Amino acid sequence: MAELPPVPLTLEGSATLHQMFRFRWKEWRNLPSWHRERIANETIRALYPTEKGAAEGHPNQSALFSQIGHKGDLMLLHFRDSLQDLNRAELQLAQTELFDYLEERHSYVSVVELGLYDSSIKTYTALAEKGVEAFSPEWNTAVKEVIARQTAAMAPRLFPRIPSAKYLCFYPMDRRRGERNNWYSASMPERQRMMQDHGAIGRRYADEVRQIITGSIGFDDWEWGVDLFADDPLVFKKLIYEMRFDEASSLYAEFGQFFIGVRLPIQDLPLWLNGHLTEAAVAHS
Amino acid sequence: MAELPPVPLTLEGSATLHQMFRFRWKEWRNLPSWHRERIANETIRALYPTEKGAAEGHPNQSALFSQIGHKGDLMLLHFRDSLQDLNRAELQLAQTELFDYLEERHSYVSVVELGLYDSSIKTYTALAEKGVEAFSPEWNTAVKEVIARQTAAMAPRLFPRIPSAKYLCFYPMDRRRGERNNWYSASMPERQRMMQDHGAIGRRYADEVRQIITGSIGFDDWEWGVDLFADDPLVFKKLIYEMRFDEASSLYAEFGQFFIGVRLPIQDLPLWLNGHLTEAAVAHS
Amino acid sequence: MAELPPVPLTLEGSATLHQMFRFRWKEWRNLPSWHRERIANETIRALYPTEKGAAEGHPNQSALFSQIGHKGDLMLLHFRDSLQDLNRAELQLAQTELFDYLEERHSYVSVVELGLYDSSIKTYTALAEKGVEAFSPEWNTAVKEVIARQTAAMAPRLFPRIPSAKYLCFYPMDRRRGERNNWYSASMPERQRMMQDHGAIGRRYADEVRQIITGSIGFDDWEWGVDLFADDPLVFKKLIYEMRFDEASSLYAEFGQFFIGVRLPIQDLPLWLNGHLTEAAVAHS
Amino acid sequence: MAELPPVPLTLEGSATLHQMFRFRWKEWRNLPSWHRERIANETIRALYPTEKGAAEGHPNQSALFSQIGHKGDLMLLHFRDSLQDLNRAELQLAQTELFDYLEERHSYVSVVELGLYDSSIKTYTALAEKGVEAFSPEWNTAVKEVIARQTAAMAPRLFPRIPSAKYLCFYPMDRRRGERNNWYSASMPERQRMMQDHGAIGRRYADEVRQIITGSIGFDDWEWGVDLFADDPLVFKKLIYEMRFDEASSLYAEFGQFFIGVRLPIQDLPLWLNGHLTEAAVAHS
Amino acid sequence: MAELPPVPLTLEGSATLHQMFRFRWKEWRNLPSWHRERIANETIRALYPTEKGAAEGHPNQSALFSQIGHKGDLMLLHFRDSLQDLNRAELQLAQTELFDYLEERHSYVSVVELGLYDSSIKTYTALAEKGVEAFSPEWNTAVKEVIARQTAAMAPRLFPRIPSAKYLCFYPMDRRRGERNNWYSASMPERQRMMQDHGAIGRRYADEVRQIITGSIGFDDWEWGVDLFADDPLVFKKLIYEMRFDEASSLYAEFGQFFIGVRLPIQDLPLWLNGHLTEAAVAHS
Repeated sequence: MAELPPVPLTLEGSATLHQMFRFRWKEWRNLPSWHRERIANETIRALYPTEKGAAEGHPNQSALFSQIGHKGDLMLLHFRDSLQDLNRAELQLAQTELFDYLEERHSYVSVVELGLYDSSIKTYTALAEKGVEAFSPEWNTAVKEVIARQTAAMAPRLFPRIPSAKYLCFYPMDRRRGERNNWYSASMPERQRMMQDHGAIGRRYADEVRQIITGSIGFDDWEWGVDLFADDPLVFKKLIYEMRFDEASSLYAEFGQFFIGVRLPIQDLPLWLNGHLTEAAVAHS
Repeated sequence: MAELPPVPLTLEGSATLHQMFRFRWKEWRNLPSWHRERIANETIRALYPTEKGAAEGHPNQSALFSQIGHKGDLMLLHFRDSLQDLNRAELQLAQTELFDYLEERHSYVSVVELGLYDSSIKTYTALAEKGVEAFSPEWNTAVKEVIARQTAAMAPRLFPRIPSAKYLCFYPMDRRRGERNNWYSASMPERQRMMQDHGAIGRRYADEVRQIITGSIGFDDWEWGVDLFADDPLVFKKLIYEMRFDEASSLYAEFGQFFIGVRLPIQDLPLWLNGHLTEAAVAHS
Repeated sequence: MAELPPVPLTLEGSATLHQMFRFRWKEWRNLPSWHRERIANETIRALYPTEKGAAEGHPNQSALFSQIGHKGDLMLLHFRDSLQDLNRAELQLAQTELFDYLEERHSYVSVVELGLYDSSIKTYTALAEKGVEAFSPEWNTAVKEVIARQTAAMAPRLFPRIPSAKYLCFYPMDRRRGERNNWYSASMPERQRMMQDHGAIGRRYADEVRQIITGSIGFDDWEWGVDLFADDPLVFKKLIYEMRFDEASSLYAEFGQFFIGVRLPIQDLPLWLNGHLTEAAVAHS
Repeated sequence: MAELPPVPLTLEGSATLHQMFRFRWKEWRNLPSWHRERIANETIRALYPTEKGAAEGHPNQSALFSQIGHKGDLMLLHFRDSLQDLNRAELQLAQTELFDYLEERHSYVSVVELGLYDSSIKTYTALAEKGVEAFSPEWNTAVKEVIARQTAAMAPRLFPRIPSAKYLCFYPMDRRRGERNNWYSASMPERQRMMQDHGAIGRRYADEVRQIITGSIGFDDWEWGVDLFADDPLVFKKLIYEMRFDEASSLYAEFGQFFIGVRLPIQDLPLWLNGHLTEAAVAHS
Repeated sequence: MAELPPVPLTLEGSATLHQMFRFRWKEWRNLPSWHRERIANETIRALYPTEKGAAEGHPNQSALFSQIGHKGDLMLLHFRDSLQDLNRAELQLAQTELFDYLEERHSYVSVVELGLYDSSIKTYTALAEKGVEAFSPEWNTAVKEVIARQTAAMAPRLFPRIPSAKYLCFYPMDRRRGERNNWYSASMPERQRMMQDHGAIGRRYADEVRQIITGSIGFDDWEWGVDLFADDPLVFKKLIYEMRFDEASSLYAEFGQFFIGVRLPIQDLPLWLNGHLTEAAVAHS
């Protein structure tokens, strides 16, 4: 029997953009208070509808976080229907007066992704057993059907609302292509097994942490982005530490920078702009 | 029979320059609107002819993209007949008033390249069988003839128009010279086979994505640049992900930063400068 | 008997933030002296209570250090009850007028951590011997009890006062995940033995140096942060040099940047702002 | 017979400095035209004599290049009799008014170097056969004689005029000290053989490209700098690509950044400062 | 017989700080000449005493260098009795008006160090033969005695005057902890032998170059700093190139950036501030 294609099927959902900004406190505090208030109100008017998200169809939401540490002061997370719409969100923000006090230090472009290791192996094997040649028109049609069916079934996970948890942890990652340990040389069944073990750890934390995986091959400098949402940030540490021992991570993961923030409901932005962080009465979710 | 030369023949075409700029929104918005309009019009006058390209000979075009993420706001892609002409394009842009609002963050210098693995092996072998010593005058003449003939045949691919697709993905890459996996130590036939497998994936995506490979050895910090053009950006992700499993990539590719943008027809620049991204009614192509 | 879980139990205490600032001497010296004095007094009023720490409960302290070298001029070290409170400390500082003369160059976010290799092995083994399956509800309950009991017993080390020593040395570190030497592939007993050897060196220096380990997986770019406090800074050099030969470090440690500072009691800040470093009559501890 | 010393003899010539500058176009264009002209003329007066070079003795020249891409706009290449004289050239330039519009982004400090693999082996072997102990006074005297004799013979290559070709390609490089492939552990005869193969490629391009190798151990961050001069820049690409397959490069070379520029005769600087690049009627050579 | 401790004894002397500054020529030249003169004189008054050094006790000197290349324009090298005193030197400089024209780009914090491989082995062996357990109180006392005796004997090398040579070369370095070549896993006798071979090269250059090794474990980002002083800078190149072939360097050294400068006697600073570099009539030594 012919060798199965090595690439797993993936489903794609919302296009996402992380924007990390330093805030120019000195320039801000030098403004007269009536001017600060005007800017704060203008910003709320601009961002509040995106925090609520669309009433129909995909949520297309944005959310705001107060960052801890020097990598940024404010993080904006956008979920939209397309990369073009993300670009529109960027351009819209750049027209607000608040933007004059923001310095963009980092960002991340990716799309919500679900990797279908199990379905891929099942589908590829079934087609191979029927004698359908990989990448033939018949094969392509069958695979597209699987993707369409699963995309419909997974829509809520592919176009999610932004979880309303108090803390966000974001980091990008790669699968290692080392000279000994090379994820892309491992066989599909090996990778499937490792992803299963990896997923099992995540499931044990499902009550405490919500995870959204985004894919960024072709869009940004790492292959994937991971967003974790939790009310207790220690859970991030425990979950990621535990995962670091599974084979998919210990042998095959490379991590980028880690960003951590506290959810900042848009209506609390005026307080934040005066230096106060409210007890996160988290946005309607 | 003597060992064949290890370096494949390549054909070279248009010299290309990618320029990635941050836009100084604050300074821009502080200008009075008559001034912004004047600058926008001046820029259109300067760039529109290059977007159209030359009426005769090679296209010598430029194109504009709205970038997503903090690596830049505007990307300019220039195709010209020589590096000197690229430098002229840079200098001309630097004289426009719009340039006062641009901060160049990245760039990439390269020339359109077609690698001729198959022809190289055929030519080198034929000459060796005739007893012509590699790099002898006779050998050089024969090789030059092959290059001249192929350059003529490939002219449309060597001096292409810039595809009018909605999205651009650009990234530079190297072939790995690791202590175990070293592309430059692999034999010519091995490299030929790997490039064939690699190309086969690209061909399966030919309807959805247009690829232009440029070489930058001696011109910039990576060995090659890859430009992908597509109307649906998810195709970038699927194509590059699939390629990551082929041997040429899994064992031998090192990737630089990824840049992603939405095509911005020059005549829509005034709208962009007001924060609007039109539904890309893409430039005449 | 089933394999034991590979991740050691950890206890978590105070959330900590290191902030490293360059000071804008030129702008500062250009202020009239009455203005400098006003700012200095305002800063003392803001920071003095946090230097003293809370009278009840956890200390929740901050401390100030004068940094040596170009990485920063002033370092602030904050210990708080939560990441949210660290963010509040950052926001509060950003509202002071002194902040206009500070440029944040680095920072580090972590939580005080005690790794329980011995208890973990004992607990995991006992539960396995009783036939309790790892991660079952019964197992989870037993483990939580161990953590709760140890957290109570270790409270003074988990929520420490900031030692009043004259010098601080801070650096972040990772455990190596190399292609040959991979900490996360080593067995729990091996790691336990290496950590014991590592700890034995530390204990020989216990009279001269106080060490606080913080964990930052999920919070910042390295896995751990190390703070060393001593009156004689040569002890930092001797301790770390000696440790570099133990297996846990020689084979498995990767180090980030090193930051070194002299303790600056808040009430001496006005002198420092005039360019003087007092003989560290160190803060009440 | 005793082991031969592993370090090859080298000859040293002109001290060289590469300076890469971004040009502040906005500030420049805001100057009134009489002021721009005055600065341009002042700069020509300052640089023209160094472009011509000294009438007697070593050339001690400088040359100007218009850079392509964001790494710089103007590159200055200085050849002088000593590092101190290079420093004088830097200081002199810093006193010109043009310098107010230059931002130095990169530089490279090195001295023209000729490596004498063949002579070294011949000399070391002859001395060893005579029983002269390495590094003994007699040995030192003999070696110094070889160096003096060769330095005299090679003077034109050690203190060269700057070639008047249209394009410059500059890059720094190291010899690899990998865990498997370590140039500095290879035997002298092996290194000699590899350098011969490497040199043979260069000689095939001798008509089209002029190469100047400089050594920078102890002076800058890489071990060597390579300057290539050619009228057709594609030759840089072909030469370096071909070399990448020889053993000295494929196994043992590490490359830094690549810088590419078009020769700008000093008298054409006023045109360049108005955004024009003349057809390089290259400086008197 | 028990295994000997792996860490060699070290002696520590002067605390040292390297500061590398870019000079703001534009702002400087815009000052009226009376103002420039006043600042130059103020600076001489502040730095001249430290250039002379203390009349009694340790020299506690500072020296000034004119740097070549873009990494800096002025380098200050400080030797003091403690890290706290280095911090005072920094703070004092920051109060001068000249500091408004200085931009600190790099620095390095370390202490003069002598590594005692031979004494360590002799001492450790003798104590082991007497049955004294390593790190026991008796062992500690004996080791402290050795250190005290050697420190007294080596005082001139531990608290040196800054050599008055014309050129300075500074670079930081690490001992490699690679997956194959790991200095910290090599046995003490192996390391002793390699350091001896390494030292033998240095001794052959003793007439031409003066070397000061400083240790920076715990103080800065590399493990050691190397300062070389010579009147002929080619000696730096020859010495370091030759050393690169010894085992301690070829297998086990990792190098940071290299900094090169020309000694600038403080009294010549006014000339330098006008763009002139005097023929280094080097400071009284």
